[in-house]
Amino acid sequence: MTDLSPVTPDFEASLRAALPDAAFKSPEPKYFEEPRGRFQGAAGVVLAPASTTEVAAAVRLAHEAGVPVVPYGGGTGLVGGQIAGEGPAALVLSLERMTRIRNTWPRENLIEVEAGAILADVQAKAKEVDRLFPLSLASEGSARIGGLLATNAGGVNVLRYGNMRDLCLGLEVVLPNGDIWNGLTRLRKDNLGYDLRNLMIGSEGTLGVITAATLKLSPIPATRGTAMIAVPSPDAALDLLALARNHVGDGVVAFELIHEQGYHFLSETLPDVRHPFETPPEWSVLIELGLPSGLDPAQVLMEIFEAAAEAHIATDGTIAQSETQRAEFWAVREKIPEANRRIGSVSSHDISVPMEAIPEFIERGPGVLTEIGNFRINCFGHVGDGNLHYNVFPQPGRSRADHDNERPAIKRAIHDLTHELGGSVAAEHGVGRLKVEDVQAYADPTHLALMRQIKDALDPKGIMNPGVILPAS
Amino acid sequence: MTDLSPVTPDFEASLRAALPDAAFKSPEPKYFEEPRGRFQGAAGVVLAPASTTEVAAAVRLAHEAGVPVVPYGGGTGLVGGQIAGEGPAALVLSLERMTRIRNTWPRENLIEVEAGAILADVQAKAKEVDRLFPLSLASEGSARIGGLLATNAGGVNVLRYGNMRDLCLGLEVVLPNGDIWNGLTRLRKDNLGYDLRNLMIGSEGTLGVITAATLKLSPIPATRGTAMIAVPSPDAALDLLALARNHVGDGVVAFELIHEQGYHFLSETLPDVRHPFETPPEWSVLIELGLPSGLDPAQVLMEIFEAAAEAHIATDGTIAQSETQRAEFWAVREKIPEANRRIGSVSSHDISVPMEAIPEFIERGPGVLTEIGNFRINCFGHVGDGNLHYNVFPQPGRSRADHDNERPAIKRAIHDLTHELGGSVAAEHGVGRLKVEDVQAYADPTHLALMRQIKDALDPKGIMNPGVILPAS
Repeated sequence: MTDLSPVTPDFEASLRAALPDAAFKSPEPKYFEEPRGRFQGAAGVVLAPASTTEVAAAVRLAHEAGVPVVPYGGGTGLVGGQIAGEGPAALVLSLERMTRIRNTWPRENLIEVEAGAILADVQAKAKEVDRLFPLSLASEGSARIGGLLATNAGGVNVLRYGNMRDLCLGLEVVLPNGDIWNGLTRLRKDNLGYDLRNLMIGSEGTLGVITAATLKLSPIPATRGTAMIAVPSPDAALDLLALARNHVGDGVVAFELIHEQGYHFLSETLPDVRHPFETPPEWSVLIELGLPSGLDPAQVLMEIFEAAAEAHIATDGTIAQSETQRAEFWAVREKIPEANRRIGSVSSHDISVPMEAIPEFIERGPGVLTEIGNFRINCFGHVGDGNLHYNVFPQPGRSRADHDNERPAIKRAIHDLTHELGGSVAAEHGVGRLKVEDVQAYADPTHLALMRQIKDALDPKGIMNPGVILPAS
Repeated sequence: MTDLSPVTPDFEASLRAALPDAAFKSPEPKYFEEPRGRFQGAAGVVLAPASTTEVAAAVRLAHEAGVPVVPYGGGTGLVGGQIAGEGPAALVLSLERMTRIRNTWPRENLIEVEAGAILADVQAKAKEVDRLFPLSLASEGSARIGGLLATNAGGVNVLRYGNMRDLCLGLEVVLPNGDIWNGLTRLRKDNLGYDLRNLMIGSEGTLGVITAATLKLSPIPATRGTAMIAVPSPDAALDLLALARNHVGDGVVAFELIHEQGYHFLSETLPDVRHPFETPPEWSVLIELGLPSGLDPAQVLMEIFEAAAEAHIATDGTIAQSETQRAEFWAVREKIPEANRRIGSVSSHDISVPMEAIPEFIERGPGVLTEIGNFRINCFGHVGDGNLHYNVFPQPGRSRADHDNERPAIKRAIHDLTHELGGSVAAEHGVGRLKVEDVQAYADPTHLALMRQIKDALDPKGIMNPGVILPAS
C-alpha cells in the first residue's frame, strides 16, 4: 500500500492546466453527503468533465500524484460508495455533464449512453423507439447509469429482465492509470478473452470510472396485468410464483412480497395511499404480468388465482381493472420505503438468501432479535430474486435514537442469520463504505484474496475509491 | 514469466502419493487430439479426479513443481483449448469422473452440477423436474458443463435464454495455487464484492479449473411452434425478427439464418434430409416460438408471416404441422455443419458483428475473397445474436488441399472485415490455441494489458493452460 496524497494547490493547478474551467464545480455539500446521512466526506476538488478524454486526463494526473479519486453519479447510493472517505481530501469526479444518449438501434434492441445519463431519461428514450429499458427502481429520476452499473443495481423488474449486469453489453472505462478501455461492444456473442465488463460492473468505482455503456433494450410486452393476492405464508408465495411461471413462463414481470406491517405504516404515515384489501392480510404479493398479444392479462390472472385458491396458496385477491387501479397497487409497494423512512428504522437490511430459504429466514428473523430488544419488523421485497428488505423499527412511542446502542447487535444478528442460510448481506445496494466490515467477516477468505489480487493488479497505487468494498490499507 | 517444468517421474510420484490409483488414466490419444485435427499435444499424465479436493491436491502439486495443467472436459472444443501445447509435457485434468448432478430446486429454477456432467444429462434432469435447461448445441451429447462454462458456449437458444454465462449463478473453482474458491451461490442478487464468476467463465482454463456450478433453469414454454420462412435478403431477416418480437416479445426462442448453399450441400452429401421448400430460396430463416398457454403457435406464426408478407420481408413460408415436421425443419439447420464437413471447408469462421452490420458483412464477404481465389461460401447462423458461421469451400472438383496456401489469406480477409465492422473473430467457440494471434492482432491494447495483469496476478507461475487465449510467454 502506497500512501495517498490529498488534493494540494499544486495538484489543483495541474488539473486547471489540463482541463477547461467549465469542468470545475464548486464543492457543494451534496458531493460529500449521502441520503441516509451516515457518511460525510472531506471537501476536495469536484470535477465534472464533459468527455471521456477529460475524465482520462484527470485520472492520469491523480494517478501520478497519488490522489484518491471518488466517482460520483446521481448521489442516490445507500451504502456510502459515492462519498470520499476519511483519508486525504479526494478528487470527486462527477459524471453529471456526460448525459448524452449517443445512439439507439431498435432492431438490435440496443442503446448507447454516457455514464451520466439519468435512468428515467434512458427509459424515456427507449420508449421513443418503441422499446423498453426495464431497470426500474425508486431513485430512477436521479440515479445515473454509471452509478447503477458500478453498483449492479436491481429493482422491481430483476425477476424478468435481470439486474444492471444482465442489461449491459459493453462498457467504456477510464482505468486507474488514466488509460481508456474501450469495451463499448454491440456484440451479444464475443469470447475474445476475459470478461472485463463484468469485473467492472459492481466494482463500485474501485477499479475504474465507467464513462459510457451499451445497454440492452427489450420489446414492450403487448399487454400488462397486475394483481394483489393474499397468501397464507411466504412459502405459499413461492408456490404461487412457481404456479404463475408454469402458466406464463417469464410473462411474470414482477412479484413483490408485502407484509401487513407495510400497510400499517402506510396508514400511519401516508393515509392517502389506497389499500387493495379491506383488512391487510399478513402476507400478500403484488404480481405483474407482461404478455404477448392475443392474451387477456386479467383473464390469465384470474386463471392463476383460481388455480392458486384451489391449491390453498391464495386466500384473497384483486385484479387491477384499470390503469389507475394498477397505479394504486404499485403505489402501495413503492410508498412502503417512504413510510419506513417516516417511521424511522433502527436498522435496515438489504439481504438475499436462496429462494427456498426465504420462509425459514422470515420465521427465524424475529427470534434472533428478541434477545436484543422489542421491535416492529417490516419485511418486504423481491421474493423471486430471494431479495428481502428486512427493516427493524421501534415500538410505537419509542424512537430510533432510543435504540442506537442496539443497532450493531441487530445488524450482526440479521447478517449472521443471512450468512447461515447461504445468503448475501449486500444484495442489491452494494457494499460501499457501509458494509466493508461485512465483506471481511462473511466473504470466503479465498474470495477476499482474489479480490485483493485483482485490486492490486489494476490499481497498484490504490487511488480508486479507496475504502470502498475493500479496506483502504 | 517463470519457466515451466515438464511432468517428471518425481512429479508423477508425488501425484501417486497424494491421489488414489483410480484417478490415473492411461494417456489415450483422445486427450491429446481435437475434433478438427489441428492440434496435437504432448503426452503427459492424465488424471481424472473424483472430487474437488482431489483436483485441488493435483493442482497444488503442479503449482509447486511449475508443471502446466490442462483442464479437459468433453473434448469437443473447436479451437484447441483442451489440448496441451508444444511446451513441457503437461498434467491433463479430465473432469470425466465428476459427473454428479448434486441437487435441483425447481421452485428456484436452479440445478447444481459437477463440471464433468454432460450437457444432455443436465437437460434431461431439468426435464424430470418439469424445467428447461435451455443451452442447446450440436455436441450436447458429449460436451461437459465445465468446458461449456470455460468457453462460455452458445448455441441455438442464446437469442432467448443467453449463453452459458447468462445461465450460471455460481461456480466452484480450483485456483492456480490449488486453493478452492467456493462461489457456488444460489443467489440471484449478490453484490458482496467483485464478480469473480464471470471472470472465470470464458477464461478457458487459464485462471483455474471449474469443478462445479449452479445453473439457471427456466419454465418449459407451454406451447411451441416452428416455421421456415423465405426472406428476400439478410436485411429483411432482421426486420422479420423485429416484427416477430414486437408480436410475441421473447417468445421468439430461435431465429436461424440459412443460405441456399446449405441446401445444395445437404442435397449433395445428405440426400435423405427433407427440404421445406421445393426450390431452396437464396435466404431463409428457421423461427421457433415458445409461448404461454392460451396461444396457438401455428396461428401466431401465421399472423407473423402475413404481416411480414405484407411488409415484403417474407416471400414464402411453411409452418410445422406436427412434431415430425418440426424435427425435419431442425434437421435442416442441424445437419448443415455435417454437410459442410463432408464437403470439406477451406476455412471456417465463427464470427459476430453488431446485428445491424450483418447485411453489410454478408454483402462484402465474397468481395474480400475474390482476390484470393474462387470459392463457394456457406454462411449461416444465429442472426439474432449477430453470430455467423462463415465457411469457405472449394469449387466443385477441387479439394480443400488445393487451397492450403490460401487459408491464411482467407482467414485474415474475413477477420479484417469482421474487425472493421466492430465484430469479434471469436464469437461462440472461444479463442483456444487457434485464435491466440487474432487476440493479439484485434483486441484493444488496453484490453490485452488488463488480461495480462489479471493472468499474472492470479497465476503468477503461468501453469494454467499455458498458450491458450494469451501467448505462453
